[in-house]
Amino acid sequence: MRLAIDAMGGDNAPKEIVLGAIKAISAFSDIHITLVGDESQIRQHLTNEERIEILHTEEVILSTDEPVRAVRRKKNASMVLAARQVTEGKADACLSAGNTGALMAAGLFVVGRIEGIERPALAPTLPTIGGEGFLLLDVGANADAKPEHLLQYALMGSIYSEKARGMKSPRVGLLNIGTEEKKGNELTKNTFALLQNADINFVGNVEARELLNGVADVVVTDGFTGNMVLKTIEGTAMSVFKMLKQTLMSSTKSKLAAAVLKPEFATIKGKMDYTEYGGAGLFGLKAPVIKAHGSSDANAIYNSVRQAREMVANDVAGTIKTAIEK
Amino acid sequence: MRLAIDAMGGDNAPKEIVLGAIKAISAFSDIHITLVGDESQIRQHLTNEERIEILHTEEVILSTDEPVRAVRRKKNASMVLAARQVTEGKADACLSAGNTGALMAAGLFVVGRIEGIERPALAPTLPTIGGEGFLLLDVGANADAKPEHLLQYALMGSIYSEKARGMKSPRVGLLNIGTEEKKGNELTKNTFALLQNADINFVGNVEARELLNGVADVVVTDGFTGNMVLKTIEGTAMSVFKMLKQTLMSSTKSKLAAAVLKPEFATIKGKMDYTEYGGAGLFGLKAPVIKAHGSSDANAIYNSVRQAREMVANDVAGTIKTAIEK
Repeated sequence: MRLAIDAMGGDNAPKEIVLGAIKAISAFSDIHITLVGDESQIRQHLTNEERIEILHTEEVILSTDEPVRAVRRKKNASMVLAARQVTEGKADACLSAGNTGALMAAGLFVVGRIEGIERPALAPTLPTIGGEGFLLLDVGANADAKPEHLLQYALMGSIYSEKARGMKSPRVGLLNIGTEEKKGNELTKNTFALLQNADINFVGNVEARELLNGVADVVVTDGFTGNMVLKTIEGTAMSVFKMLKQTLMSSTKSKLAAAVLKPEFATIKGKMDYTEYGGAGLFGLKAPVIKAHGSSDANAIYNSVRQAREMVANDVAGTIKTAIEK
Repeated sequence: MRLAIDAMGGDNAPKEIVLGAIKAISAFSDIHITLVGDESQIRQHLTNEERIEILHTEEVILSTDEPVRAVRRKKNASMVLAARQVTEGKADACLSAGNTGALMAAGLFVVGRIEGIERPALAPTLPTIGGEGFLLLDVGANADAKPEHLLQYALMGSIYSEKARGMKSPRVGLLNIGTEEKKGNELTKNTFALLQNADINFVGNVEARELLNGVADVVVTDGFTGNMVLKTIEGTAMSVFKMLKQTLMSSTKSKLAAAVLKPEFATIKGKMDYTEYGGAGLFGLKAPVIKAHGSSDANAIYNSVRQAREMVANDVAGTIKTAIEK
């Protein structure tokens, strides 16, 4: 199996991307990696070239670039070339920690949609207290959505969880403002019946308050709401940790006690760190495209490679294609 | 000034409601309170009758009741009678910790909308790290919203923050998935220009991740999204505290250190406890209607009374009426 990785995307590129690739290579004997980016910069960190190739390019898409225009104009950008490896059959999947919008555009224009999929969806796996995590989609590939789009998100999320995460009959929930069937806005009210009749394990409406308690394995919503929920979880967790730090640093007594608890605090921060589950998959494309978190370190990249590998090995894209054709 | 309080609503009614009323009476010499509910139950906790009257009724709206039907059929329910005190000119404002949907229905059908207000909005003040808090509206009075509704929410939120919270030129933000003007779904894109041209201090789009950092004083969104964000903040904070507890109770060493830090943890929990800011105002009605949190204790009720008093004293409803007429 061959994976193309944009070595220049993300806050810690290319170093952490290269180190993550090396880590993945030693963990999985069945993968080959093509690192796309500036060869001399990549080589500075490449201590092991086993099953790793470099595709040299100097062009890069910046996080500040306007996504669609960047993908159209910077035809030799590392991210675009990584996606093109897939189109040309030289890679089975690609991943990048760079500009999210640009990767979505590259996925759409370069890798291409599965026929019948109206809108691809961006789907990260978020933490739960129990540690199993839940898939949230869409978190912003499309701000507006129709009921039929949400139905496709549900199908794709269910297939991904079954195939790539090994879940049996994953519980699919519809994110809503109440659990009762008739609750919600126009979109969720009209989506409910569609999901009830779909070939998935639909568990009904789920509330935002219960997400981290693991109320469902797959949570379906429109991209605007999903993005809000994702960023609210991140913002709230960060704020609580910040308050914790401020408060514990306020006296000598609390500083000492906090020092003793350092490993415990690290454990909790680790539990909230969703890069452990891999990156966000862009579902509905002809091949897996993974968006690793912008702040990814080597370990996050490794987890994203693992995820891409599972998706390829278990033919998630092919299974989605077959399900949509039905 | 006269306030009508539903003594039977909320998880801790009537005890905590009555105790909160007594606390408010001793703090504010200019208020009279009518407690509406079962007289004998109320009397069990009423240690001081100064400026407090009881309006007896045995009917109660339950948290499980279907809101609109309950308000229509249970005409003598404590919540409905409290609202009717306002309509009959016997109270200047009313408050309840009971069924949120029913209180919204009672506000709409009994107290009534200000002419020109298309949709009332439910508006809680949520915590920020700095402690100043921000007003979020709408959090679910209406699941769907049009740009003109969001404009009215912005005006009402701005007036409330200025009049009742004493803020000079409160910063109004539009909740969105990015800060750039052109970001968003159809609703936010179409709302942006309306807010730019409104007579408010519009600071542009704000992201969910920045809310607890105090990025704006008033944050405007549709009721579906607002409800999601509110419940995600609650759920995430609760989950982090739960993980903290689990982790700190896992060994004797961490248990001991955690015991030392008990006051610090209480401080942080207190900071996230938004009942300190009062209840959620139902804006756009002819008189203030306050929804206190369902789990309100005496202190939360006291804070809600304080809030209702500020709204009456500074004529928030009258100022909204004048602003809408323009």
